[in-house]
Amino acid sequence: MPGRAGRDAEFARLSWDERGLVAAIVQQHDTGEVLMLAWMDAEALHRTLDTGTATYFSRSRDEYWVKGETSGNTQAVVSVAVDCDGDALLVRVDQTGVACHTGTRTCFTGREIWHEGGTR
Amino acid sequence: MPGRAGRDAEFARLSWDERGLVAAIVQQHDTGEVLMLAWMDAEALHRTLDTGTATYFSRSRDEYWVKGETSGNTQAVVSVAVDCDGDALLVRVDQTGVACHTGTRTCFTGREIWHEGGTR
Repeated sequence: MPGRAGRDAEFARLSWDERGLVAAIVQQHDTGEVLMLAWMDAEALHRTLDTGTATYFSRSRDEYWVKGETSGNTQAVVSVAVDCDGDALLVRVDQTGVACHTGTRTCFTGREIWHEGGTR
Repeated sequence: MPGRAGRDAEFARLSWDERGLVAAIVQQHDTGEVLMLAWMDAEALHRTLDTGTATYFSRSRDEYWVKGETSGNTQAVVSVAVDCDGDALLVRVDQTGVACHTGTRTCFTGREIWHEGGTR
């Protein structure tokens, strides 16, 4: 497996925003559940690929965070794809436990605000 | 179904960014495929719920766009959920045709840059 230098071609396909970030959509690889949305800069993506464990950049705390480092609910990364614009990543993972810090399986679980044909 | 005024409680759960936008993760409702990432402001979300057809805000063109309006590859919205932070939406849709303007099924199709155990 190539090291960081071997990722130059892949990283060149990314369009970092003015803060140096891209959005990362995190999906459970086998069930297809969308677990959460997070952000990565180049260093967070390198750390993710170096370790195989999802590492993000917190915009609110202005720091790197290994997802699940304190809770144990880590994400083993299965694959990473970039979108056609280069400003979003699809990170397919194997989630240990729950993805959301509130205790729900995904950050969207139980948070539907509208459903076709429903009353909202 | 309530009109725009009936959505006040749901919209109050959203944290719009400094541009008035939230990220919208768009997922095919039955297969679980992540189709694309787009952006919505309050008006785009209202139009989406008014019509049942996904409508986004283009950051690059600074305008609303009904997804598929010219190509015919529209997205019938099945449900919308908000995440725990209120700054991301999960929009589950039924995609007609392909989601990506490049002709691929999703904006991530064929754009993998890393796979666990692989050479990249």
